[in-house]
Amino acid sequence: MMQTYSYPTSKQLLERALKVIPSGVYGHLGPVEGSMLPPSAFPFYASRANGAYFWDVDGNRFIDYMCAYGPNILGYNDEEVERAANEQAGLGNCVTLPSIKMIEFAELLVDTVHSADWAFFAKNGGDATSFALTIARAETGRKKAIFVKRDYHGVSPWAKLIGNAGVVEEDVSHNLYVDWNDYQALENLVEQHPGEIACLMACPYSHGNYVDNELPAADYWSKVRALCTKHGIVLAIDDVRCGFRLDLAGSDHYYGFKADLICFCKALANGHNVSAICGIQELKGTAASVFYTGSYWFSSVPFAAGIATIQKLKRIDAPKLLREIGQKLTGGLVDVAKSHGFHLNISGELPLWYMRITDDDTQVLHQAWIAACVQRGVFFTNHHNHFLNTALTDEDIAFTLDVADDAFKAVKQLLPQYA
Amino acid sequence: MMQTYSYPTSKQLLERALKVIPSGVYGHLGPVEGSMLPPSAFPFYASRANGAYFWDVDGNRFIDYMCAYGPNILGYNDEEVERAANEQAGLGNCVTLPSIKMIEFAELLVDTVHSADWAFFAKNGGDATSFALTIARAETGRKKAIFVKRDYHGVSPWAKLIGNAGVVEEDVSHNLYVDWNDYQALENLVEQHPGEIACLMACPYSHGNYVDNELPAADYWSKVRALCTKHGIVLAIDDVRCGFRLDLAGSDHYYGFKADLICFCKALANGHNVSAICGIQELKGTAASVFYTGSYWFSSVPFAAGIATIQKLKRIDAPKLLREIGQKLTGGLVDVAKSHGFHLNISGELPLWYMRITDDDTQVLHQAWIAACVQRGVFFTNHHNHFLNTALTDEDIAFTLDVADDAFKAVKQLLPQYA
Repeated sequence: MMQTYSYPTSKQLLERALKVIPSGVYGHLGPVEGSMLPPSAFPFYASRANGAYFWDVDGNRFIDYMCAYGPNILGYNDEEVERAANEQAGLGNCVTLPSIKMIEFAELLVDTVHSADWAFFAKNGGDATSFALTIARAETGRKKAIFVKRDYHGVSPWAKLIGNAGVVEEDVSHNLYVDWNDYQALENLVEQHPGEIACLMACPYSHGNYVDNELPAADYWSKVRALCTKHGIVLAIDDVRCGFRLDLAGSDHYYGFKADLICFCKALANGHNVSAICGIQELKGTAASVFYTGSYWFSSVPFAAGIATIQKLKRIDAPKLLREIGQKLTGGLVDVAKSHGFHLNISGELPLWYMRITDDDTQVLHQAWIAACVQRGVFFTNHHNHFLNTALTDEDIAFTLDVADDAFKAVKQLLPQYA
Repeated sequence: MMQTYSYPTSKQLLERALKVIPSGVYGHLGPVEGSMLPPSAFPFYASRANGAYFWDVDGNRFIDYMCAYGPNILGYNDEEVERAANEQAGLGNCVTLPSIKMIEFAELLVDTVHSADWAFFAKNGGDATSFALTIARAETGRKKAIFVKRDYHGVSPWAKLIGNAGVVEEDVSHNLYVDWNDYQALENLVEQHPGEIACLMACPYSHGNYVDNELPAADYWSKVRALCTKHGIVLAIDDVRCGFRLDLAGSDHYYGFKADLICFCKALANGHNVSAICGIQELKGTAASVFYTGSYWFSSVPFAAGIATIQKLKRIDAPKLLREIGQKLTGGLVDVAKSHGFHLNISGELPLWYMRITDDDTQVLHQAWIAACVQRGVFFTNHHNHFLNTALTDEDIAFTLDVADDAFKAVKQLLPQYA
């Protein structure tokens, strides 16, 4: 059996953080037992990162399959990206006027993204989705928006459900929800609200937490596209999570349709702080009519980093590479599970696969195995999709499979009912 | 007469940008004649920046009194800040887990900001103000919020007025507005809505665009503070613009009261991308109950830069220094104007003064003088408050006053009615 990690320094730092930061670590990284990152088995603070790895504050090394929840697509501190960022930083970052890098980045996105006639930059994925909703309302003069259940569009009150702390009824009073992949329900909903729907906002496929991810049914997107066109509904794709991992031309292009608006963040600049919304020519004037800006939105370093990121992703054909890595990795993990008599279900797209051990309805087995992997240097989380980056090597995958194997052995000792 | 700048490269780039970016340059930087930055007299793109200066793409140098609209407080590319940022960048920036820098930055803010028992970090000033509103609603179970007319809290629909593109009635249906400095109107409003007001959100003083800025009346804030306490209203101060320029302990401290929540951005990290909300102990649990996070919110480089910024601001007593620079500069400008027979009115606080030539109700004279200053290398804007940074020298001020003098001469030639 492999040696397992412990996290005394992480635990001390969390205690220190709790004194001055609400929750200590907030959002999905929060220290809630049984959730994404149960504190009993996971570190909470990183000391450094490089390529496919990060090291925690106790000196433990992890192969990182969360990739900062998406931004790391070329490996941490990619040389090409950091060189471009540093060169720009020497010239200036957040200055009173933007630099030419902003134009060059917009040109590159228009050239790269199939549905993009223009690009607009902000800072959070939620800035982009909120802008999409606002553009759709301004364009159509309508108020209502349709969302797919379980899709995540950020932390704005409109993107939450009533019952979430601080959300009031009016924040979500124009929201309508449909089940993923249920075209008929969507069509019915649209017909129940003639001339009232400004926007359909959706992720390219269903990659929610806690459930198997689900790809679009055959013809789903072509029918949705036709429905939106027929009813004058703005079709906004939230590509914040999938963007540039499935297809550099956009996940709408990958699934054979064309969005009116498409939102990017995460993989856009390999961790440098920028998000983008791209759109069709017909919406450019309306986008210009919405007052939308922020203190750091013209900063040049993220634009320079984004240009270097997209150029490298193109040169190495990153989506193809990630798919190959994903095939080797998930195929191997399924085989290792099978060799121990377990079924590991892989769902979603390979560059950001979701996995779940199906032999236990209580999640105890699954969470125990994930924890055992983490404690051996392979950073998975319990109920979130994972992410791949192009710095992962065959040796990393081999190490991962060894860890997965040892983790199953450990789980059988811990939970003798599965031995 | 001094030689004046021209901007052929900026104009070419703007044409190029207009093809791929809505408005070409968006927000308050947008190329609308007669507004902040009329395209006839202003450059649109910077090539580099250092200390108190930036250079445009035509090679013209400007003493920059906009400071990236606030973020530049120590001078562009401050050595101490950039050294700290670079050291952290070498270790890692946007990683799956945060670094100890996040805790250290929170501890430093709690130590520095008078009303802060805790700190929470985001990316836009609007992230902080939206979080404040959400916390107040979650804490009180009430829906309504009072805002001061002309205060700017970002680009979220709730922060706009009905009539703005894409804003719907429900976005602002719980907003109430009062005039600045009118305590009696505020008290009346509160009493008209017993038990309904979650939040009063306000800037420390009125620093709106297009009008003279206005400091708080004597006792205004102490009466407001007492009113909020009496009625269980969360008092949220938007210190995004003033923060760390008036008082390192917060602008509430500067004006002798204590906010419940205080929002920072801009000067927080000398241009590195981070915003913060700080609050009192009683609201820490509620803050923790609101799900609020984003893709880059745990990035370590802005935290390292923020720590270096606040430490240097403390060491050099930046607010005192900025006030001294502001006194020399605005005093000099007023004298130069007077020597030409004009009255230049200075309003607001000196580190972010507002100025207006009062001899012409049409703004033609004012805008012509501003344009003439810009075309001679002093970057002012027409109707926005300006900002100071600590890299400004006596020589810079002397140069500015020479330019101001020459600009008045030029204006008299251009507008003979004032000669």
